[in-house]
Amino acid sequence: MRASFDALAAIGATPAGGVTRLALGDQDRRARDLLVAWCREAGWDVRWDDLGTISAWRPARAATKAPVLVGSHLDSVERGGRFDGALGVVAALEVLRTLDDLGLETARPVVLVDFTNEEGARFEPPMACSGVLAGRFDAGAVRANRDRSGVEFGAELERIGYAGEEAARLPVQAASFELHIEQGPVLEAAAIPVGIVSGIQGITWSDVVFTGDSSHAGATPMDVRRDALVAAGRFLADLPALAARHGGFATAGRITAEPGIVNVIPGRVRVGLDLRHPEAAGLEALLEDARRGAPGAAFDTFWTSPPTAFDAGLMAGLESAAAALGVSTRRLVSGPGHDSKYLAERGPAAMVFVRTERGRSHCEDESARWEDCVMATDVLLQAVIAAAIA
Amino acid sequence: MRASFDALAAIGATPAGGVTRLALGDQDRRARDLLVAWCREAGWDVRWDDLGTISAWRPARAATKAPVLVGSHLDSVERGGRFDGALGVVAALEVLRTLDDLGLETARPVVLVDFTNEEGARFEPPMACSGVLAGRFDAGAVRANRDRSGVEFGAELERIGYAGEEAARLPVQAASFELHIEQGPVLEAAAIPVGIVSGIQGITWSDVVFTGDSSHAGATPMDVRRDALVAAGRFLADLPALAARHGGFATAGRITAEPGIVNVIPGRVRVGLDLRHPEAAGLEALLEDARRGAPGAAFDTFWTSPPTAFDAGLMAGLESAAAALGVSTRRLVSGPGHDSKYLAERGPAAMVFVRTERGRSHCEDESARWEDCVMATDVLLQAVIAAAIA
Repeated sequence: MRASFDALAAIGATPAGGVTRLALGDQDRRARDLLVAWCREAGWDVRWDDLGTISAWRPARAATKAPVLVGSHLDSVERGGRFDGALGVVAALEVLRTLDDLGLETARPVVLVDFTNEEGARFEPPMACSGVLAGRFDAGAVRANRDRSGVEFGAELERIGYAGEEAARLPVQAASFELHIEQGPVLEAAAIPVGIVSGIQGITWSDVVFTGDSSHAGATPMDVRRDALVAAGRFLADLPALAARHGGFATAGRITAEPGIVNVIPGRVRVGLDLRHPEAAGLEALLEDARRGAPGAAFDTFWTSPPTAFDAGLMAGLESAAAALGVSTRRLVSGPGHDSKYLAERGPAAMVFVRTERGRSHCEDESARWEDCVMATDVLLQAVIAAAIA
Repeated sequence: MRASFDALAAIGATPAGGVTRLALGDQDRRARDLLVAWCREAGWDVRWDDLGTISAWRPARAATKAPVLVGSHLDSVERGGRFDGALGVVAALEVLRTLDDLGLETARPVVLVDFTNEEGARFEPPMACSGVLAGRFDAGAVRANRDRSGVEFGAELERIGYAGEEAARLPVQAASFELHIEQGPVLEAAAIPVGIVSGIQGITWSDVVFTGDSSHAGATPMDVRRDALVAAGRFLADLPALAARHGGFATAGRITAEPGIVNVIPGRVRVGLDLRHPEAAGLEALLEDARRGAPGAAFDTFWTSPPTAFDAGLMAGLESAAAALGVSTRRLVSGPGHDSKYLAERGPAAMVFVRTERGRSHCEDESARWEDCVMATDVLLQAVIAAAIA
């Protein structure tokens, strides 16, 4: 498993220890080619669909039964880490290889999956290809997307040789599992190596516009001002309390003040607000409370992704497996999105998180302890077996 | 006086009722030419110095005695108002014309002044030419300044025919007076037509840099975050209280957050802070208090303009004149800078403010009631006479 991980990490490796493997680029092709070679070597049936998502089917007793999916993605962000995505693919590879080593015949096919373009770093939106499976996006529109250089998704897919047939799309699963690094500090803070992901937080993005009166900083007495940046400041200062009231997350990642001159009172301030909550009602309450906290401000809520709850049975299965292996776990909610979000809309899905050092991800010094990766893969293996033999 | 005001307002007039008369441009030349024609018609001795500042000398009993200066500036900002600067020049013109009408021989010369480039809208810094008189700037450096198109101050001065001799620079004055619109709402709020300006606020500009940890908005629990924008928000929200504690002004006119992505916690926020106070000690205390209010933030205080106090005797003279004329006045501090700031560093100086409608200035709908302008000019006239006959 470590050798496979290292071989993938060498493809698109950056000098500072990360990888750049943008979706459908030359490095993605090399990583795919290596994965396909490994899968064919193992004798699994390798396919890719009309959006390039690769699946490798391990033979089963009943080839027509709904499969158990296990995988993640091989693409990365620009100067990303070696673990994000690739670890989940390597863990899936290890699961299928171990089933082979054990000579275990499963009732359902166990299928390794590498989703095309999870990151959305080159072609927006992220998770586009699992989103097509869930009926959230149109395949033609995804293929027509262009990167910043104007290169088309569909053309790149052809160029690297991974434009397959629609018939090769993944069917609805009996169960799906994705192992991924946490990308946050929760497990590390709790000193727990493996997390059972209960769901993916709902996200809502708003532009919050504060309006005041722009005037001269030297000529306008303090008591008659309507300073849009002071109003925004009160709102920003309250974000931690707002999040705490609802048990959610509140972040303002961007801000602009107009006219933006040091000696002119801002007349207009625009704040980009990211609110997250694991439950739909909680997300709505959080947004409502945010509105109350910015009286007079205009909210343009321009994007919402509802929360995802993972399958209770699969979570319990993962926890039993961990308990049997003596691996301590805790449940946690994922902040970032994953392809499993869309898989969960079609059938039972679950995720396993690996403790991440200093919570750092999407950067070259992203890392996880190898023994944690192995423990999480052991848990994954047991859960896959339990789902596949049924 | 009204005819002269309207004639100047027609030069560079904008469709929405303002003027664009950038320093040393064609419209500034036309305004200068008209002013010079009026002054020569009146028989005054017109000169301009090596930076184009025009002075028109009315004959006096003792031509070598230190003069009484009265004037302002004819340049405007882009799409500025008709009153800012031009009203003070027209008032000075009216003062000298009235002295002629009265046949009054003064002990000291009364000199009308039009300062080049008060605004700094085309060539930075503002008040460059009075600043040279005060020894704050180098004349060669001012002449070498270029506008955004790369056109040189000195070349434009030659082109419009106003490059004069250093010998024509204004000597140190016995008294100087500048009438100007307030550009703020204080007089209007107090229902008082005329203000006696006690000084110009000291100003200090700082870049305040808040540093946090940039990380994913979905993966970083609220309680472990170091969100630079939340820290900046607390600081911004407190600005009104900060100003109130010291009786000064506090404004943050610009802000940037890095990396500036909606779902990434800002790791670095830079706030442009403008602090003002009429007294040097107050300005220092205000800055010190601001530093305490942003623990951990880095302050780069990149520009400071110390406060100016106008001459107590001249202020008293203006107030006596107003009382004799039945004009109600109040003292107030100027937020914006004026050429009188630098004149005050050489000799006695004072300013008279005219109530401004809705405090609006540097915009096309800048306005003042004409009767207020006339009252303020009457006060100015009496004070100039009192200073010039001594």
